[in-house]
Amino acid sequence: MSLPISFLSDFGYEDEFVGVVHGVLARIAPDSRVIDVTHGVAPGDVRAGALTLMRAIQYLPQGVALAVVDPGVGTSRAPIAAETPWGFFVGPDNGLLSPAVAMVGGATRIVAIENPDLVIPSEGATFDGRDRFGPAAAVLAGGEAKLSDLGGEVSPASVMPLMLPLSDVNGGVLSGQAWWIDRFGNAQTNVSPEELSDLGLQPGAEVAVKVGNRDHLVPWVVAYGEVEPGKPLVHVDSYGLIALAVREGRGDEWFGLSEGTPVSFSSSA
Amino acid sequence: MSLPISFLSDFGYEDEFVGVVHGVLARIAPDSRVIDVTHGVAPGDVRAGALTLMRAIQYLPQGVALAVVDPGVGTSRAPIAAETPWGFFVGPDNGLLSPAVAMVGGATRIVAIENPDLVIPSEGATFDGRDRFGPAAAVLAGGEAKLSDLGGEVSPASVMPLMLPLSDVNGGVLSGQAWWIDRFGNAQTNVSPEELSDLGLQPGAEVAVKVGNRDHLVPWVVAYGEVEPGKPLVHVDSYGLIALAVREGRGDEWFGLSEGTPVSFSSSA
Amino acid sequence: MSLPISFLSDFGYEDEFVGVVHGVLARIAPDSRVIDVTHGVAPGDVRAGALTLMRAIQYLPQGVALAVVDPGVGTSRAPIAAETPWGFFVGPDNGLLSPAVAMVGGATRIVAIENPDLVIPSEGATFDGRDRFGPAAAVLAGGEAKLSDLGGEVSPASVMPLMLPLSDVNGGVLSGQAWWIDRFGNAQTNVSPEELSDLGLQPGAEVAVKVGNRDHLVPWVVAYGEVEPGKPLVHVDSYGLIALAVREGRGDEWFGLSEGTPVSFSSSA
Repeated sequence: MSLPISFLSDFGYEDEFVGVVHGVLARIAPDSRVIDVTHGVAPGDVRAGALTLMRAIQYLPQGVALAVVDPGVGTSRAPIAAETPWGFFVGPDNGLLSPAVAMVGGATRIVAIENPDLVIPSEGATFDGRDRFGPAAAVLAGGEAKLSDLGGEVSPASVMPLMLPLSDVNGGVLSGQAWWIDRFGNAQTNVSPEELSDLGLQPGAEVAVKVGNRDHLVPWVVAYGEVEPGKPLVHVDSYGLIALAVREGRGDEWFGLSEGTPVSFSSSA
Repeated sequence: MSLPISFLSDFGYEDEFVGVVHGVLARIAPDSRVIDVTHGVAPGDVRAGALTLMRAIQYLPQGVALAVVDPGVGTSRAPIAAETPWGFFVGPDNGLLSPAVAMVGGATRIVAIENPDLVIPSEGATFDGRDRFGPAAAVLAGGEAKLSDLGGEVSPASVMPLMLPLSDVNGGVLSGQAWWIDRFGNAQTNVSPEELSDLGLQPGAEVAVKVGNRDHLVPWVVAYGEVEPGKPLVHVDSYGLIALAVREGRGDEWFGLSEGTPVSFSSSA
Repeated sequence: MSLPISFLSDFGYEDEFVGVVHGVLARIAPDSRVIDVTHGVAPGDVRAGALTLMRAIQYLPQGVALAVVDPGVGTSRAPIAAETPWGFFVGPDNGLLSPAVAMVGGATRIVAIENPDLVIPSEGATFDGRDRFGPAAAVLAGGEAKLSDLGGEVSPASVMPLMLPLSDVNGGVLSGQAWWIDRFGNAQTNVSPEELSDLGLQPGAEVAVKVGNRDHLVPWVVAYGEVEPGKPLVHVDSYGLIALAVREGRGDEWFGLSEGTPVSFSSSA
């Protein structure tokens, strides 16, 4: 019984990088289903990749998560594999896996991927996704190796965390940021509905939203349909976080937001 | 025996939207093959999505078609599932499914997707592709539910049709439009070869083609090779419709066409 | 026992082209796994597609390689299928398959795909990927047809080769070119490490690199980590060829390279 493999990377769709990793997985674990979470993470953007994996993980079938966003390839960061209540995580030790691993309950064991028998030899530089992470994910999925066969155990305390920006309250103003702009222009923030409620706000209220020097009064709605097309709104998005959006339009453009832009919220009363 | 699922959307390839729907499908229907028709439909372009599904449907393996292009998410349009001679269709009731359903012979039964047991709960807004359409498609594909388990029947007459632009003949001039520009710049029109024949034209003839204020005389060919590289042509494309193209070039640029641009045809004699 | 199919094209991700070919494959060979090598080859760029397939082939599971980059569709180039020690190759006779076929040891037999029973009829022009190449790949993968069922044998000598640019040494200067810029901006050249060694260079040396009118002294390193972030380097890439790169940056921009740009190397001593 082979486990499914969920694969996320910043490899994009123009080169054969994704295809050759699929090839390696199919050669080693021919019966494993492979799900492409996305390969459109911006090149080298570890934080965006980590947030993406964290959002997705609860919807993926339990098995193996293979994630590669690795601007440090060819340097000393270690390749790791982690065992969790959800299943296995395979990728670089650069913070990419940390939020998703935490989301599913934390790692019970982490090893460095260093067994040379499980690395595909290359004439030149290693393409770790293809030569090291792919084979490790495939042997775990196919049951050909146990976690301990991959390499020596490493302490969870030594694994790199991902520093996520925290929101902050000061004088009735909640300061956060946009941390994901999706394809449709919706801007997810790092603010939870509970934090807005702590300011005395609730669905139906007008929220004072400040982006840069501009102040807006925006209704907190439950469904897009509560505002007219083209109008802005604040709502709890499908991942449970506060998002800024425009009905049938682009929230990022309306508010002037990109990933990392500070946003503050307060009561309009 | 699980049915294959063919999945089309405007979710794009940068976010994890496609991946999490695949995850949901794999969790509920682990043995169903999933075919990605495309996820590159322009955001919210219901007509483009409907035309794409209509063109593709006859080539897809019978089973379940899951289609999500849904600018009205969060408003009152209903999620529906339809039974047809081809198989099941699942998506929003906004016209997206209608041309493909008609193409395969029409729906024998349509239900609203409203059974709360089959909806994945979300803390905030519903991501219908993931929480409602995906699960509905998966239970139909895996045989875990019958159509009637999804919700109450709705009248086919109440389902939203897709208004497709019709061509029109007046004084020997056939007026149509470009309704699809493909990656290679070929422009499919809403005109059939029979309509051109009714003007007295046939393959081999020169066709008078008017786009904007510009008139062209263009040969109607059977194969690209009948004109020199870089030269324009009229032909019946691989879906059986009249298209404007340029051999080894881009027809859209040569003629000045985009989706929706009016094009008229007449005999040059 | 169905063979896996590895599928490469220039169809892109916006239209349904890739999806309908998957549909055709699934209808004919429902048990074959299909791997998308990439569909992001630049439209009509046969050389880029051929290089991509050549790089990927050794990592793909043995079976059927289906490749379609075909600016000559609708002209007289033949559709072919080749048997090799790796498996079958299916695609246009325009040079696309040749480097990959050579890489796996050459073709033992080549046939023209001409059996009308195996072509999906179309009302208009043939979409060869869907109507001819897809079905041929699927019957070979599913075992429903032998190579000789597809059509008559053609002489390997009559099949179009792909002319690849060769490097050249003159007066101690090795002249090559960049022939692949990947998503991350790394520029693979057509130069092998042996050729650099023949100039008296080895890892650790400074290499004199000339692009256009600009001369650079660049270290030949084994791993990116040997230079500081933002600094250029020469190395043997994961396919065993000399590449120009920038640690945590884009080599193509730093050096001013695109696909086809001449690059020369010499000893700095």
